[in-house]
Amino acid sequence: MTRSICIAVDAMSGDYGAQVLVPGVLDQLKINRELRVILVGRESVLRPCLENIPAELASRVSFQEASQLVAMDEDPRTALRKKKDSSMRVAINLVRDGLADACVSAGNTGALMATARFVLRTLPGIDRPAIIATIPAIGGNTHMLDVGANSHCTAEQLFQFGVMGSVVSADIHELKSPRVGLLNIGVEAIKGTEIIREAGRMLSGSNLNYIGFIEANDIFTGHVDVVVSDGFSGNVALKTLEGAARMISSYMRAEFTRTLFSRIQGLVALPALKAFRKRTDPRRYNGASMVGLNGIVVKSHGSADRIAFGNAIQIALVECQQGVPIQISKLLEQQAI
Amino acid sequence: MTRSICIAVDAMSGDYGAQVLVPGVLDQLKINRELRVILVGRESVLRPCLENIPAELASRVSFQEASQLVAMDEDPRTALRKKKDSSMRVAINLVRDGLADACVSAGNTGALMATARFVLRTLPGIDRPAIIATIPAIGGNTHMLDVGANSHCTAEQLFQFGVMGSVVSADIHELKSPRVGLLNIGVEAIKGTEIIREAGRMLSGSNLNYIGFIEANDIFTGHVDVVVSDGFSGNVALKTLEGAARMISSYMRAEFTRTLFSRIQGLVALPALKAFRKRTDPRRYNGASMVGLNGIVVKSHGSADRIAFGNAIQIALVECQQGVPIQISKLLEQQAI
Repeated sequence: MTRSICIAVDAMSGDYGAQVLVPGVLDQLKINRELRVILVGRESVLRPCLENIPAELASRVSFQEASQLVAMDEDPRTALRKKKDSSMRVAINLVRDGLADACVSAGNTGALMATARFVLRTLPGIDRPAIIATIPAIGGNTHMLDVGANSHCTAEQLFQFGVMGSVVSADIHELKSPRVGLLNIGVEAIKGTEIIREAGRMLSGSNLNYIGFIEANDIFTGHVDVVVSDGFSGNVALKTLEGAARMISSYMRAEFTRTLFSRIQGLVALPALKAFRKRTDPRRYNGASMVGLNGIVVKSHGSADRIAFGNAIQIALVECQQGVPIQISKLLEQQAI
Repeated sequence: MTRSICIAVDAMSGDYGAQVLVPGVLDQLKINRELRVILVGRESVLRPCLENIPAELASRVSFQEASQLVAMDEDPRTALRKKKDSSMRVAINLVRDGLADACVSAGNTGALMATARFVLRTLPGIDRPAIIATIPAIGGNTHMLDVGANSHCTAEQLFQFGVMGSVVSADIHELKSPRVGLLNIGVEAIKGTEIIREAGRMLSGSNLNYIGFIEANDIFTGHVDVVVSDGFSGNVALKTLEGAARMISSYMRAEFTRTLFSRIQGLVALPALKAFRKRTDPRRYNGASMVGLNGIVVKSHGSADRIAFGNAIQIALVECQQGVPIQISKLLEQQAI
């Protein structure tokens, strides 16, 4: 029998709150029979969202009361100090106390990172946790980290990101030896800052499958599995992709509605365009893991809809099944750095 | 009568050399009657590319011999020291000596920047030149700088980029007051590094039309005209866009060839897709100005084809007509920083 996995869900946060998040949870409960969830928040708000659901699903849902909510624009330090009974904090506490295997939140990224780091602490040998995002690439996906937690990173931290990214990429894609690239502004050894060059030397000396510097266009070619960068550049790359995809969609819509003839073309092309849109749907890539912590924390986009939030839960589930934090510690121990 | 403008063209560099560059030059000579060019390189190589052209065009082309070529992967310092008779260096010398109004090169970016900086020097009040790229956005274009010359920048340099970007954006788009945004990983005042926050304070205190921090997805929304960033982040954003656009094209091709039915859909949709591709064609955006120098230098992509290289010449021509370096000095003087 499969071991049941329990995920604590911060069910109050995000742009839309419980009305959108709870249906996303229910979708995942239907698909994954081994999944149990603890909905964290105001039970008086959450319970009505579960009305009329089958008894079998209801039996795998429990509640944990939390009276506060961290605002999406709240300063992380304020949230950490003053919101000790927030849905986010209580969900993370459940992981720390061994009552949940992972937690998922669509809340304020900075507050989630600060709280998770404070409550769960980092793994031995990891200086700073990182946020790892899954990005579509030709023929598959690329994992990129950090995408926003650490604006400035040391060479050691970048090296640790390489280790953490290798584990997540291997566990989610079942790759034996993921190819790790270091984001730079050229592939020659003289390019970039001294920190990046030093991180490159450390990665070269490791037993990771390090392929050298890559440029941002390489993220999408399918030639690299893990892209290591500081949180500033990683965030710039991720948001550029979002913005470019939105612009290109808008161009395509405009092209297919410009004239009556192009409207007809658009109608004929519709099924292929829909298939294309499905393949590049950012909701499919929702769910960024916060790695390097003593526990599994997955961040959903604040504006996630039901499908996107469900995908974030799916990612947390896979990480639980694979035991990502233990795998990271093991791989880190194997490095002779 | 329109004043004639003379552009020195490094006609030997780039991935394809004279065979591609000279036809790009001829296209522009046909369109722009006020344009004259000096082709710099081996006359024995260049002259055959001009065979059978109309006498009127030939009368606006002259040659300047240069015996050396900077390799695309050559170290900029070596190029500067040992290639004093390179086509790139000689073209820049022509600008310094007032024999050309601008120079255009598809050569090694680092070597072009180092040589231009050494030969032309920066404008008074400008610490470092920057590379400014034109990026497609919904409803128009965005100008981004720096996209690769300076990995690390001070707050003062970022501020100067704001001034230079305002001038180029105003001159090329004829905008009265271009909106300047500072690239960050969030729009709140606490986000980013201390350097970025300080640059934000300097821009706020200037008489530029500064709209605050922007995130990388905002580059494409049409809500900002000038995006200021250091050369590392700017390069990451530019190359992410390139890579994402290529991936999306590849997806679309795959969608429209997956089955016989989707091939037929693709055929019907072809005219609209072609129009879309034309609108997003990166060749239309080729030509990145090196701003902040005592002279006009435009860098073409190394892999530019005839159309793309012609576009780089077009950009140099407009900058000559507008007198971009003088405009930068004027706007800089108006700042009370």
